[in-house]
Amino acid sequence: MRSIDLNADVGESYGAWRMGQDEALLPLVSSANIACGFHAGDPGTMHATVRLALSHGVAIGAHPSLPDLAGFGRRAMQVSANEAYGLVLYQVGALSAFARAAGGELRHVKPHGALYNMAARDRALSDAIASAVHAFDPTLVLVGLAGSALVAAGRERGLDCAEEVFADRRYEDDGSLTPRTRDDALIHDEAEARAQVFGMLRDGEVASRSGRRVPLNADTVCLHGDAPRAVEFARTLRAALAEAGFEIRAPRHRASTRDPDAGRDGRAA
Amino acid sequence: MRSIDLNADVGESYGAWRMGQDEALLPLVSSANIACGFHAGDPGTMHATVRLALSHGVAIGAHPSLPDLAGFGRRAMQVSANEAYGLVLYQVGALSAFARAAGGELRHVKPHGALYNMAARDRALSDAIASAVHAFDPTLVLVGLAGSALVAAGRERGLDCAEEVFADRRYEDDGSLTPRTRDDALIHDEAEARAQVFGMLRDGEVASRSGRRVPLNADTVCLHGDAPRAVEFARTLRAALAEAGFEIRAPRHRASTRDPDAGRDGRAA
Amino acid sequence: MRSIDLNADVGESYGAWRMGQDEALLPLVSSANIACGFHAGDPGTMHATVRLALSHGVAIGAHPSLPDLAGFGRRAMQVSANEAYGLVLYQVGALSAFARAAGGELRHVKPHGALYNMAARDRALSDAIASAVHAFDPTLVLVGLAGSALVAAGRERGLDCAEEVFADRRYEDDGSLTPRTRDDALIHDEAEARAQVFGMLRDGEVASRSGRRVPLNADTVCLHGDAPRAVEFARTLRAALAEAGFEIRAPRHRASTRDPDAGRDGRAA
Amino acid sequence: MRSIDLNADVGESYGAWRMGQDEALLPLVSSANIACGFHAGDPGTMHATVRLALSHGVAIGAHPSLPDLAGFGRRAMQVSANEAYGLVLYQVGALSAFARAAGGELRHVKPHGALYNMAARDRALSDAIASAVHAFDPTLVLVGLAGSALVAAGRERGLDCAEEVFADRRYEDDGSLTPRTRDDALIHDEAEARAQVFGMLRDGEVASRSGRRVPLNADTVCLHGDAPRAVEFARTLRAALAEAGFEIRAPRHRASTRDPDAGRDGRAA
Repeated sequence: MRSIDLNADVGESYGAWRMGQDEALLPLVSSANIACGFHAGDPGTMHATVRLALSHGVAIGAHPSLPDLAGFGRRAMQVSANEAYGLVLYQVGALSAFARAAGGELRHVKPHGALYNMAARDRALSDAIASAVHAFDPTLVLVGLAGSALVAAGRERGLDCAEEVFADRRYEDDGSLTPRTRDDALIHDEAEARAQVFGMLRDGEVASRSGRRVPLNADTVCLHGDAPRAVEFARTLRAALAEAGFEIRAPRHRASTRDPDAGRDGRAA
Repeated sequence: MRSIDLNADVGESYGAWRMGQDEALLPLVSSANIACGFHAGDPGTMHATVRLALSHGVAIGAHPSLPDLAGFGRRAMQVSANEAYGLVLYQVGALSAFARAAGGELRHVKPHGALYNMAARDRALSDAIASAVHAFDPTLVLVGLAGSALVAAGRERGLDCAEEVFADRRYEDDGSLTPRTRDDALIHDEAEARAQVFGMLRDGEVASRSGRRVPLNADTVCLHGDAPRAVEFARTLRAALAEAGFEIRAPRHRASTRDPDAGRDGRAA
Repeated sequence: MRSIDLNADVGESYGAWRMGQDEALLPLVSSANIACGFHAGDPGTMHATVRLALSHGVAIGAHPSLPDLAGFGRRAMQVSANEAYGLVLYQVGALSAFARAAGGELRHVKPHGALYNMAARDRALSDAIASAVHAFDPTLVLVGLAGSALVAAGRERGLDCAEEVFADRRYEDDGSLTPRTRDDALIHDEAEARAQVFGMLRDGEVASRSGRRVPLNADTVCLHGDAPRAVEFARTLRAALAEAGFEIRAPRHRASTRDPDAGRDGRAA
Repeated sequence: MRSIDLNADVGESYGAWRMGQDEALLPLVSSANIACGFHAGDPGTMHATVRLALSHGVAIGAHPSLPDLAGFGRRAMQVSANEAYGLVLYQVGALSAFARAAGGELRHVKPHGALYNMAARDRALSDAIASAVHAFDPTLVLVGLAGSALVAAGRERGLDCAEEVFADRRYEDDGSLTPRTRDDALIHDEAEARAQVFGMLRDGEVASRSGRRVPLNADTVCLHGDAPRAVEFARTLRAALAEAGFEIRAPRHRASTRDPDAGRDGRAA
């Protein structure tokens, strides 16, 4: 039986401001990427989101960002490798503390927004991110864009990596995402978006904007929570995947040296 | 052989701004309270300070603060118990990540500035702080003002606590520190400051501003790093303590369940 | 013809986060208190809100706050008089720049949240706020809780002041607002809320929670924008006031030395 | 008699952190670029720095930055034109309020750090900055790198511009500064640095790193305050310029519609 991970970016409220539909989305995914305070997610929101994710049996992940509340972490910023190492380690540690306090465990790390996009192309930045994740816990799964420099850096560093694909984003010939500045960056037709996911899973490839067949690995599918029909789309995609025989679950996680019980369910590298 | 801990607040630079004399002070103390980003201490500073402390064999502690960079965490702020829990857990987790990445381990937590002063008097706030520390790691040592509500809350929560005293601060009859707004808040004479420490260690009491003898336990002495002669005072106090037969070392730390090797040196609760 | 000002706190979005119903509320009020970046209101939001308010002919006011994005400016904070002076002046200047750039003019200042509540009771803090407003522009109107220390400080400093009342808040015998921690802090019945406003305007007094008649001046009524029926309540209150013969308009503004046309209404400094 | 402006970046302390040698440097310059809170300069520091500058008769300028305290505004950041407009307007307004409250007047604006460097090359960004400055006050002087896109944008927008040169920085063939990542970016020999300034003033050109003669206009010379011998260098350069017959003074400022006395020097808009 094949498996696939469905992930969502959650915990993106901040103080008095609400964002997203976490309560509706978390029951539908297997992995949650939780904001760590630099683009969203004050400590109270982190606490509540970690507990909500655990209550649904969803794997807890850190979603570290560039330090940019006003820009929601979406603005590229020229950070050095040392700075990237520090800000990832800081945020991963902070989120991990909430997981630990709630009786859970951090399972994965997925950079957010501009950091994610920069890391997809910039190997030095990706090496710094992978080093920070590995230094914190070498059993964590690093999540990056399928085929990206971040995945390559994580693998070389010895981390398990999950390659991420998108249902509703258009791809370029080199496997990058069509920039949102283009009109055709998003796939609005839900049937087409579902078909794109199934094509990726069945054939290991996606049709680019120009019609070229681009090979990629699909370990995890990102589901958005901010569009009006986002939750409905997540529900139908999940149902279609289940009907097609896919098990929806988080990437297998290596036994942690710090958690002697973690291996009981047969999870191995 | 009696022992005493000497501690210092370090890592209080931020980005391009320098503060303190960490390089000179760390060789003289046994415990370092490292800023966690809310009043000082960007990730790069945290990283460097943790490594510097480890290189001197100094115990690593988190020094969490109210969120107030502009006020250096010195301004009292009305935070709820939930908010206090969250901000302590967040910062302790972040600092712990740097300790772990550097091959070390977090040993203690000491609130900073206004949070420290508020917690000394406010039991509900202290309970929230103690709960956050305990939820993260029940083997951590909680450091608070000698005789304070924070120490009581920590003990009730099941934490080892270290009671902190000051060489150069004047005390009130109730064991609180004379507010800095008073002219006589500080003891400027170094011989008198040393004598105050020795009196506390020998007699378990201190003479208050009004001359009353106030009982207190002295587990750890705070050494400041910001005054011109601070390092010189630390050096002479340390030498005097060593000559008087005191071993300078961090509070004993219970074997961590997460670190099976931590018990080898015979440390027990 | 009697007049009354209706004011609303607007521009409280921040970056990617939305808050309030500014588009619906601004056509109903005569004065807008616009967040200045310390509790809400990034520069882009300030820019858009100032322009929206001007397009509706609404008087532009600054709504300065304690520096506390995560707490939305609602947490009391121990700031010195100097600090309060600086943070009010900073925010008033920033908001004023957007008003000026949009061809408008700043008309009033109303402190936000915890700063407003602290200033209602703390005369030294109020003096600092009034000094900052006066130093920036002595023709600005200072808005504070009816009967509060802020109004007294503003008057003594030579500022025109507008005393603010609330339709849906319960009052204590001393004219302060019943704390939100009490169950009966809010008046949920809309007819009762409207009646409270009319009573204030007609009789210059309000019935306190204990039933005592508390005298107060009502220059401006605060309309909230965050409750589900808030806009509907604003609409019916405005209609009732108009029907009763009240002109809805911002407090008269003294001739500004910078605005030679402002003196037409005959209120020279 | 020829004149030249000497400028310095000041007010770069923040809360408890000190930076620079403002007291020593301000008596030596004619223009002060004062940090506005986004890379440095809390409100208290802004207040004190504005007053210090005024006490020395130095022209007050705003020194707006990208929002990046931890990076001191030195990290490039992908901001949109709208965002740049907003953050410049916000900071200029804030600084202007302190100038006005102290009885002075804002005279110029010089972007800081990464914003300055980005604007030197990016015309769309420069247009946004120039628009914000013009919208606030069309009589302000905009300061940018000599020959840069910012100066061109400011001129086209109708602003008076001051072209800035550096005594101790090496230049490239295109008039840009040699990046600090190169070993030869800085001119360490003080006599050579002085000679570079005199060459620029006398010949309107500078020798590039490769030896080419690069034409430029020198309206204002930037003096740094952070190097050990910075103040001494500023003193000797000022003395040499005075001896050579230069008047040290801020760029002439067009008559402000808000300042009826400003037109006395005959430079009407």
